[in-house]
This record gives sequence, structure tokens and C-alpha cells, in this order.
Amino acid sequence: MKKIKEATNRITGIDYKLMEITQNRLDNLTKPQGSLGRLEDLAKLIVGITKKGNPELKNKIIFTLASDHGVAEEGISAYPKEVTAQMVYNFLRGGAGINVLAKHLGARVIVADFGVAEDLKDAKGLVIKKINYGTKNMAKGPAMTRNEAIRSIEAGIEVFEEEFSRNSGIPPKAGKNGIDIIGTGDMGIGNTTASSAIAAVFTKAPVEDLTGRGTGIDDAALKNKIRVIKEALKINNPDSNDPIDVLSKVGGFEIGGLTGIILAAASKRVPVVIDGFISGAAALVAYHLEPNVKDYMIAGHCSVEKGHRAILNHLGLKPLLDLELRLGEGTGAALAMSVIEASVKILTQMATFKSAAVSERIK
Amino acid sequence: MKKIKEATNRITGIDYKLMEITQNRLDNLTKPQGSLGRLEDLAKLIVGITKKGNPELKNKIIFTLASDHGVAEEGISAYPKEVTAQMVYNFLRGGAGINVLAKHLGARVIVADFGVAEDLKDAKGLVIKKINYGTKNMAKGPAMTRNEAIRSIEAGIEVFEEEFSRNSGIPPKAGKNGIDIIGTGDMGIGNTTASSAIAAVFTKAPVEDLTGRGTGIDDAALKNKIRVIKEALKINNPDSNDPIDVLSKVGGFEIGGLTGIILAAASKRVPVVIDGFISGAAALVAYHLEPNVKDYMIAGHCSVEKGHRAILNHLGLKPLLDLELRLGEGTGAALAMSVIEASVKILTQMATFKSAAVSERIK
Repeated sequence: MKKIKEATNRITGIDYKLMEITQNRLDNLTKPQGSLGRLEDLAKLIVGITKKGNPELKNKIIFTLASDHGVAEEGISAYPKEVTAQMVYNFLRGGAGINVLAKHLGARVIVADFGVAEDLKDAKGLVIKKINYGTKNMAKGPAMTRNEAIRSIEAGIEVFEEEFSRNSGIPPKAGKNGIDIIGTGDMGIGNTTASSAIAAVFTKAPVEDLTGRGTGIDDAALKNKIRVIKEALKINNPDSNDPIDVLSKVGGFEIGGLTGIILAAASKRVPVVIDGFISGAAALVAYHLEPNVKDYMIAGHCSVEKGHRAILNHLGLKPLLDLELRLGEGTGAALAMSVIEASVKILTQMATFKSAAVSERIK
Repeated sequence: MKKIKEATNRITGIDYKLMEITQNRLDNLTKPQGSLGRLEDLAKLIVGITKKGNPELKNKIIFTLASDHGVAEEGISAYPKEVTAQMVYNFLRGGAGINVLAKHLGARVIVADFGVAEDLKDAKGLVIKKINYGTKNMAKGPAMTRNEAIRSIEAGIEVFEEEFSRNSGIPPKAGKNGIDIIGTGDMGIGNTTASSAIAAVFTKAPVEDLTGRGTGIDDAALKNKIRVIKEALKINNPDSNDPIDVLSKVGGFEIGGLTGIILAAASKRVPVVIDGFISGAAALVAYHLEPNVKDYMIAGHCSVEKGHRAILNHLGLKPLLDLELRLGEGTGAALAMSVIEASVKILTQMATFKSAAVSERIK
């Protein structure tokens, strides 16, 4: 728990003063004031988070965390459990959606095993932080022990910090100086079930309103999924005032890991692009551990997965994109990251009215 | 008129058969079917438009057309008229919003003078298709002659075709083979006034519902702007069944130019990303000249400018982004183009279930 406390203690407010100065700069660029809408807000936010007047988003990383879920044995997914491990290999070979999108925007994908149910062999490049071989079935008892929940968050903090220090050598490695922005991603058959349960605890909304079709289950399977989540909540009775308790009772190792990554990034003043529903559940846990972390989050998109909107509303985040995605892996975060990078370039590369000799408004 | 007829005659339906085959391919990629939402629709559409199974969007161009508007003398803008010319110089020097965003996504900006009120000197790289020195004040009579309206559309066709053939030499120029995708952009003090008038003619919605604050006018100026548009419609009585008549009575040279560019691109099976309100007005004119052109359009974003939504609804287009932009220049089209390029890479670069040895769905 010490590592978590250290990270949350380092998360302080963002720099509103510098954001005000930045708005003045934006107002002097050759465009009507405010006419670049959310791009202007994003540029300001990145300045406020990083405390850099002219930030650059060069070193971009998507953390895609994989883990299995014991609740998969309840038949809540359209895909068999072994897909989690198979997709990890796919990530490592560069064939998955997140690989293609990350490459498109010039980001790297860091893939980590937080609790895949089997040992992954010949997995070059894989970060191994296996907490256990999948969680237990939450419909029958706690998904993990309290200690495993703490350990999963701490392992997330470690993954971020290891990457951060790898990129922050003195002197800094060529072309690299810390991490400029990160996105969160997930892979785990059964993890929308865990995420719906987490969302139910924190938002207090009915399970029916928070439970979607995940990878694409039919009506009967959806009915069963809702029953399973209700059963898990009833049996475990997670305490909404104790985020670690919620994570241990109805969470997942990759969700805990993402919670740690979000906290660690914020503690180093690195902006975090939250992907979809599972990343949203991790953001909920992080927010209830340390409310200040919210200012470091950018909601990349709004997922099709029912319940994501409720999470975003609870966090007070407005999603950047709405492209009807429901894949996870960090795909929505990756697409959003390109828009965020564009916003920063607007701030740092556009001409001013003065430098371009353009007349200012007359009324 | 011959050049316009030739272009519209070449615009035929997109390839629905190939789009069906493409959906099958998308369904075999390592992701739940349909889970990449609008990215999948976009990839299919690009295939259908280009008739290429594996399209690449390498050569990307934003056409930013500038022109002045006689109606500016009615005090309908927050900025003085000379800003149009000043911004053209800014575009050519690379200091405007569209330059920054186009560079971000690897697109080129082609800037053309379709009717700036002054002769632009020392303007290296500027395409000159000046129809006249700005339109006339539409509140007092037609903005341009019928012949000028035709000429502006034809000049737009020429701008596209000149660029298209420059990039399609036999043998093709290094790294260039035609144009893969284009975006539309505009600059012209007063052009939201013209666009609201065009939207009113085609959508039949009340002028009040179609008239926004443009570059940021106050309540009194907005009231005056609405009065001016109503006056222009009353005096000129444009015929909604004759798009050339509408363009000549209440349009602008850059709007006619963009109409030509949209038609020319569709006639060469090149996808067109429509920017905001002014580009939307040009899309309306193009659509009413040749309804098939609609299938070649992608609505890049939804502008803050009141009335844009009505245009998109009239065209049956669903905007890709909603970032509260109202700058024009092609900025929304540029941001959307990056998402469209990503969608095509999903289709062409992701692994299949078979190639990645990932299990398929069980139910």
C-alpha cells in the first residue's frame, strides 16, 4: 500500500495560472477567438498538466494490460477464455487493432501480462507482472484477495515508472525525455462483466443500465450476464468507500494495473488518455482513491458499451470522440491521442495576428 | 457549362459489391465483429469509392479556396474585409490553423484565389483562379452573374484536375499516383452569410435557424445579419431547382470553386472530406447538381455554426467529429482525414483470426 500512497500523495492540482496565460496566447493566434473549440481546451489542459508552456507530445505510449477473469466460466462472453492469451501474442506480433492505430499516430504499445491464465512463452517484449493465473469467479466469492488488489495497482505503478525512468536517463536517451502522454488499454475475456460490477458500486446505477453486450453476446447471454453481476454484488457486498475492497471483490488484475498506471502517470504530471469501458472502470477506482487524478484524465471516446456514459458522467469527463467503438485495447485512446497532439501543435506552431500582419477584430 | 456536365456525367454509383466483400474481410480480423464501429464503415466506404480492395491514403490534399464577399459592407462580420487577403499570405507562409493540422497528418494545402478583392502579389505557390474582385453585395442584387457562377464551378474542376494530373504522370511521379483523398476548405470574410442564404434556399428552414455568429459577432450584429440574408433572398428570389441560379444570386466564388472541386473529385473516384458550414453550402450546390455525388462525401465534423446540422441532415450525412470547431479553412476536414486514414489501415494491416491463430466466437 506504501507505493500507492506515495503516488497519490504526489498528485496535486494542475496549473490553472499557466492555463490562463495559455488562453491569452491562443486568443492571439490567427483565428477568431475560441474558434478551434475543444482543441483549445485540450492544448490548455496539456499545459496545465505538464506545467510546460510549449509541450511536445513526442513520446506517446499505450499501455495494454491483459488478464483473465474467473467469471468467464459463467458463460458471460461470446469468446472462449483462451482468446486472452492468443491476443497477447497478436499484440506482440503487431497484428491487433491497437498495433495498427498506435503505429498510425507514432505511439508505442507496451503489452503487460497482469494475470493471464497461462504462462506465456516466447513472448519477447512482454512485460510480466502476473498477479495470479486469472481472478476467481466473482459470482462465487471475491475475485481476488485484498493483497492481490493492492499488488495489481502497485504493479501498474511499477510498469509506468519503469518505462518512465527508461526514457528519462541523464543524459536523456536520444529523442526521448520522459513520457509525454499515455493511453490506457485492456484485454481480458470477461472484463466488461467486472467493469459493469465496479461501475454499479460507484455510480449506484442499476446493473441493467450498466451492462452491455461486451464482445457481442445475444439477448439470453446478456440476461445471464446481468444475473451473474447481481449475484457477484450480492455475495461480495463491496464497500464503495473502499476502492481496494471494490477492486478485490469484483475487479480484475488488468483493471487494478490500469488504476496504478493512471495514478503513476498523474503523479509524474503525464496526461492520461482513458480508453473505453474497462479503462473507465479503472479510472473510477483511481478517482475514488485520489479525486485529484481526474484533472489528469482525458476521456478518449465514448464507447458503445452500455454503462460507459454513466462512468464518464460520474467522473465529469466529456469524451473527445464518438466513433461507435467497443474493442478496447486502447484503440479509442490512440485515435484521441492524435487529436490531442494536434491541439498542442496549434498552440505552438500557429502564427499570431502580429507576426502574420493580420488585422484583428473590429467589434 | 460543358465542363460541369462532363464531370457530373462521370459520377456514377459507388461499388456496393466490393463493400460487401470488404465487410467479410473486416469480420475476419482479430476483433469482435463490428467492434471498430465507424472505422469499419469508413474503410468500406473508401473501398466502395475508389474501387480498390486495399486502398492507401498517401497523397492527401486540402484545397483551401479564398474569396471576398460584397455583402461584407453590410457589417455582417466581426473582422474587416482585408483579412481575407492577409490570411491567404498566412496560408502561404504556413502560419494558419489549416497549415498546422495538415502538416500534422501529412497532407498538403493548396491555396487558391477565387475572388479576393485585391491582386495578391509575391504569392508563391498560390493558384490563381480569380473570377472577379469579390462578389457584389447580395443584399442589393445578385452576388455574381450566371456566367461567373458557372465559371467558378469550372475553375474548381480545373484546380482539382490540374493537381490530379500533376500527380498522375506516366510514369507516376515519385511517391505520387493520383490523389488519394481530399478535404475542402475556405477563407472569406462574409462567407457564412452567403452559406446561410444558400442553406435557406435548399433546406427551406427559417433563416433564423440557419444563421450563426460566424467569426464571433454580437447579438445586434447577428440580428442585422439575419435581416441582410432575408433581404438578399427577397430581392434575388433564387430558384431552388436551379443550383447555378442559387450560387449566382446568394453564393460566393470560393463556394462555387468548392462545388467544382467536390464534383471533380467524385468524377475521379476520389473521396471528399467536407469541412464545416461553408464547405457544406458548396456540398449542397454539388448535390443539387448531381445527387450521386453524395456517396463520395464524408462529413468531417459538425461545426458550432448554427445551420451546419441542417445542411448535414439535408444531405443525409453523419459527421465524424464534433470538436466544437468554427474556423473553416479545412481544419475539421484535416482532423477527420487522419481518422479515415486509420480506418483504411485497420482493413489492410490487421491480422485475421486465422493468421494470428486466435479462436473465433463460440456463440
